[in-house]
Amino acid sequence: MSLVKKPVNGMKDILPEEMQIRDYVQSVIKDTYRSFGFTPIETPCMENIANLSNKQGGENEKLIFKVMKRGEKLNLETAKDESDLVDFGMRYDLTVPLARFYANHANDLPSPFKALQIGSVWRADRPQRGRYRQFMQCDIDILGEPSNLAEIELILATTTTLGRLGFSGFEIRINERRILKAMAAYSGFSEDDFDTVFIILDKMDKIGMEGVAAELKQEGFAQEAIDTYTSLFQGIQEAEDGISYLADTLGGALEADVVAGMKEIAASVNACKTAEFALVFDPTLVRGMSYYTGTIFEIAMPEFGGSCGGGGRYDQMIGKFTGKDVPACGFSIGFERIILLLMESGYQIPQQPKKTAFLIEKGYPGEKLAEVIAKAQKARQDGQQVLIVRMNKNKKFQKEQLMKDGYEEIVEFFNR
Amino acid sequence: MSLVKKPVNGMKDILPEEMQIRDYVQSVIKDTYRSFGFTPIETPCMENIANLSNKQGGENEKLIFKVMKRGEKLNLETAKDESDLVDFGMRYDLTVPLARFYANHANDLPSPFKALQIGSVWRADRPQRGRYRQFMQCDIDILGEPSNLAEIELILATTTTLGRLGFSGFEIRINERRILKAMAAYSGFSEDDFDTVFIILDKMDKIGMEGVAAELKQEGFAQEAIDTYTSLFQGIQEAEDGISYLADTLGGALEADVVAGMKEIAASVNACKTAEFALVFDPTLVRGMSYYTGTIFEIAMPEFGGSCGGGGRYDQMIGKFTGKDVPACGFSIGFERIILLLMESGYQIPQQPKKTAFLIEKGYPGEKLAEVIAKAQKARQDGQQVLIVRMNKNKKFQKEQLMKDGYEEIVEFFNR
Repeated sequence: MSLVKKPVNGMKDILPEEMQIRDYVQSVIKDTYRSFGFTPIETPCMENIANLSNKQGGENEKLIFKVMKRGEKLNLETAKDESDLVDFGMRYDLTVPLARFYANHANDLPSPFKALQIGSVWRADRPQRGRYRQFMQCDIDILGEPSNLAEIELILATTTTLGRLGFSGFEIRINERRILKAMAAYSGFSEDDFDTVFIILDKMDKIGMEGVAAELKQEGFAQEAIDTYTSLFQGIQEAEDGISYLADTLGGALEADVVAGMKEIAASVNACKTAEFALVFDPTLVRGMSYYTGTIFEIAMPEFGGSCGGGGRYDQMIGKFTGKDVPACGFSIGFERIILLLMESGYQIPQQPKKTAFLIEKGYPGEKLAEVIAKAQKARQDGQQVLIVRMNKNKKFQKEQLMKDGYEEIVEFFNR
Repeated sequence: MSLVKKPVNGMKDILPEEMQIRDYVQSVIKDTYRSFGFTPIETPCMENIANLSNKQGGENEKLIFKVMKRGEKLNLETAKDESDLVDFGMRYDLTVPLARFYANHANDLPSPFKALQIGSVWRADRPQRGRYRQFMQCDIDILGEPSNLAEIELILATTTTLGRLGFSGFEIRINERRILKAMAAYSGFSEDDFDTVFIILDKMDKIGMEGVAAELKQEGFAQEAIDTYTSLFQGIQEAEDGISYLADTLGGALEADVVAGMKEIAASVNACKTAEFALVFDPTLVRGMSYYTGTIFEIAMPEFGGSCGGGGRYDQMIGKFTGKDVPACGFSIGFERIILLLMESGYQIPQQPKKTAFLIEKGYPGEKLAEVIAKAQKARQDGQQVLIVRMNKNKKFQKEQLMKDGYEEIVEFFNR
């Protein structure tokens, strides 16, 4: 077998220039989230295949990289199908592993538990430009907090982080699964059809309200239901306060605590935010994952078409592991998209150490070399970055490259 | 299929207490290595299976977690053996991926290139206490530097890092594959038998010189060769300077530049080191990987039986990808062992931010809650860590737990 220089199909090598930004962004994320009392945890990159195939992950379950059994457990002759050959799978998100982690360790964790996870996930998507099959996710979750203090803290922590990275003028869009359901129920759709309705509603930003209405019609829904549904979205748009409009219009179809909760979240976030952004009620926000049970939210950046992260409340997932539900709410930053935006904007990392290069001529004697190294060691201890390299034949080119790499001082040591 | 609470067999969840130490150690490692001019890079966790099965990885190649083909490429009916079902594998070290990375990107990288990699690797070892099937590696490598400036900088960077983490009194053991070979050749072993001899020599620390001699005998080697070999090790032990003794004794069998190189490395490291450790010539040091071509080294901690890291020169690996050899030398810190040692010693992370907890009584009104959150936001901006939580029913226990988690100030907000 011959060796392959390229990374595996759909995954990428990360070069120093990008890595430096990734490392810096990670450190800002960790510092900021820690200041909110989130504590880091980590789970293995592989999970038992049963945990990944329980219908919690929606479409992502079709994209699992599966790990083959090993040794005696692997039996090709007797295997009837794929499932006989596989025991583990690569995680496709950090939420399913977190639920398993919490189910496994709840006794050793504070309640509520505020978790921070930064790690790679894998999805065997068809490779396409700018979208990779291994990518970093960065999640914060609050487990065991039923009140909307969870939502408020998650939104403040996430937006404070984005603000520290220089982002402003973005939107946090928020909705509630129970508002989605109340609007559909009020319009006359039956509960069995909700998922179909929401999948079509999710296309709003691409096809508009008219397009959504047309697709609902095509799906065979009653014109009356579609008209009522359309008029609700119209009403929200025209109202000064969409939530109050819905409370008035839907009446008993919408639980009172949903209305109060959404208003409290907005009031607290707006009173305490440190970044410049708008919290916007978006009744068309759906979010794909079937595990959400309450609030859902998404980050929308003006510079970027799609979503730059999102999250929501998933009060019933941990119960799948333990038989006992635990309130849970999380927010995930779209790490790769944030990095892409920063790279494209020519982002400069603040407060870098001074970079000096020592160039040593060929044949420079060993005992004198030790003196040069000692000098470098001194500067390094003082917080500088010192590179010691042999002078190349093409010294001019070498020095140009070093300056390009940020070395502001170049000291040459000659052999004489 | 029912859900499994435990992590996959042989891998582990990492709880906040350990994660905080891991994150801190990583930040010290990154800061220190950056001060030496190493730049971080990353490669995907999976490699094409051909790259992992080319005999460079020694025994580790038997321990690969293999990833199953997907979609149309997976054909169970026509598959003759395992290799027809697999396209990728999980990396078992960071050195093979680095060689591939360098082969792929050499044109975009400075020469020499100083790489820093921190990442997980996977080995399907039989699970055993304290040894996991997913673990972190932390490697620095210098590619394109033929002189022993590479070895000197690698040893200084690694030991400076260990020193900053509070380690002292450890040993860096160093040897040269060419010394190993010269000693074996001088003793009369034939080149074909070198690997067998070295595998037995590698057991020295467990079975002693007598045990090694007995095993060599058992393997059928001539008594004369064994006696000469034994006397060489004896001679080194009794000599004031082992390297000079070998130079005198082996004569032409040992290349002069090996002797000069080993002496230069020792002189420079001893003159420039910032940590308290001893650089020791160890003629019994073998290192398993077959890719090493020159110097090899290992970290030995008094607190820990085995090795806490190691490395060496592997000048012929990149050539396997490109057809053109590139000088290469690397040093890997045994990250998991370092963490284990720090955890066991009750290590305290220096300079942690002040931790305050705000306890909110149940029913605390929304508008007053916003004031509390605003107060927390202010303290967070000042660099403090502030946790806002609802008061639990068992407040006494909750406060005890918070104090255990390092919260030195607890402020209670009552609903009145």
